[in-house]
Amino acid sequence: MLRQSGTILSIRAPRQGLHEITSEVHEFVSQSGISKGLLTLFCRHTSASLVVQENAAPAARRDLEAFFAQLAPEGADYEHDDEGPDDMPAHLRSALTATQLSIPISDGRMLLGAWQGIFVFEHRRSTPAREVALHLVGE
Amino acid sequence: MLRQSGTILSIRAPRQGLHEITSEVHEFVSQSGISKGLLTLFCRHTSASLVVQENAAPAARRDLEAFFAQLAPEGADYEHDDEGPDDMPAHLRSALTATQLSIPISDGRMLLGAWQGIFVFEHRRSTPAREVALHLVGE
Amino acid sequence: MLRQSGTILSIRAPRQGLHEITSEVHEFVSQSGISKGLLTLFCRHTSASLVVQENAAPAARRDLEAFFAQLAPEGADYEHDDEGPDDMPAHLRSALTATQLSIPISDGRMLLGAWQGIFVFEHRRSTPAREVALHLVGE
Repeated sequence: MLRQSGTILSIRAPRQGLHEITSEVHEFVSQSGISKGLLTLFCRHTSASLVVQENAAPAARRDLEAFFAQLAPEGADYEHDDEGPDDMPAHLRSALTATQLSIPISDGRMLLGAWQGIFVFEHRRSTPAREVALHLVGE
Repeated sequence: MLRQSGTILSIRAPRQGLHEITSEVHEFVSQSGISKGLLTLFCRHTSASLVVQENAAPAARRDLEAFFAQLAPEGADYEHDDEGPDDMPAHLRSALTATQLSIPISDGRMLLGAWQGIFVFEHRRSTPAREVALHLVGE
Repeated sequence: MLRQSGTILSIRAPRQGLHEITSEVHEFVSQSGISKGLLTLFCRHTSASLVVQENAAPAARRDLEAFFAQLAPEGADYEHDDEGPDDMPAHLRSALTATQLSIPISDGRMLLGAWQGIFVFEHRRSTPAREVALHLVGE
């Protein structure tokens, strides 16, 4: 019989950029007792987002952060800058990446590939705690 | 006992750009009678897409529209232009944003953050009605 | 009564770029016997991704491939290049597109629009087999 479980993770990234949360998410899956199903992560912000990326190479993370910093730069001429120069680029980088991810669960584990980690992509310079809603349906 | 509900929303954006549909989606969730679960939106087009963005600041929407208009411009040299200069940029902007979103439901409400709204991002200049398929599983 | 089904597709794209998998995915849905529900695809890699795009116009695919080749080019100065010049751009193009897609199912068919196809977007020059995890919940 299918059932569901949910929680809200509170995440504080230590700085702007990618912050891995794979182990926190795995812990939620383990404690749910659901061994087969579908896990969904939803980022409750428009200035932080979710990315599945390489979990082994710090250089790849730095390149990814540099790429988005250049693609949606802080110095551009934005109309919306109420909260400072990192405000609007944060919205743009969020729109370019993911607000939500769903990952199948099998044998009690997320079906991530060997090199995949789940990251919160913090786009603001000051880093308040971020909420990521988790939902799991399965059996 | 889990159950599911579905519908297809017909959305007509008044112009190119972001068009908020949060209230239409909320109405579907309310009428379903499902208070805890997972809602999925799927955009049935390759020249319009879905974005979760800031729902309070019109300037942020204008900046976001301007950013994508510059990133995938209408004036570029595309091979595919059967339907006019806004045809191929529409596909590119769709690929850069989201075709689908899933949002957990709790206490009969989507777990959106305080400033998050759900938008159809209309990339074409002429705006036919767009179909967004909704699916809800829960109890 | 809701139930679920899952599998892992092994996909070998013949070359870098978009490779349509709509029929393989449809076959899984058909064989599941589930006629109403939610299908999820999850790409188990950080150098290949998923895109829903125009399935009729090869020129649109070429334009899309050329756009991402220019946006995250192979010739740029990346710190992470262990596996060659197509390594880091592959991660960037994956982050810009989708790792996961969910599509509602009705009457035994995915609710894709008339012109939508599901594609694996292969970002590497050498193309090992790729794994796409499929999960279906419904009845």
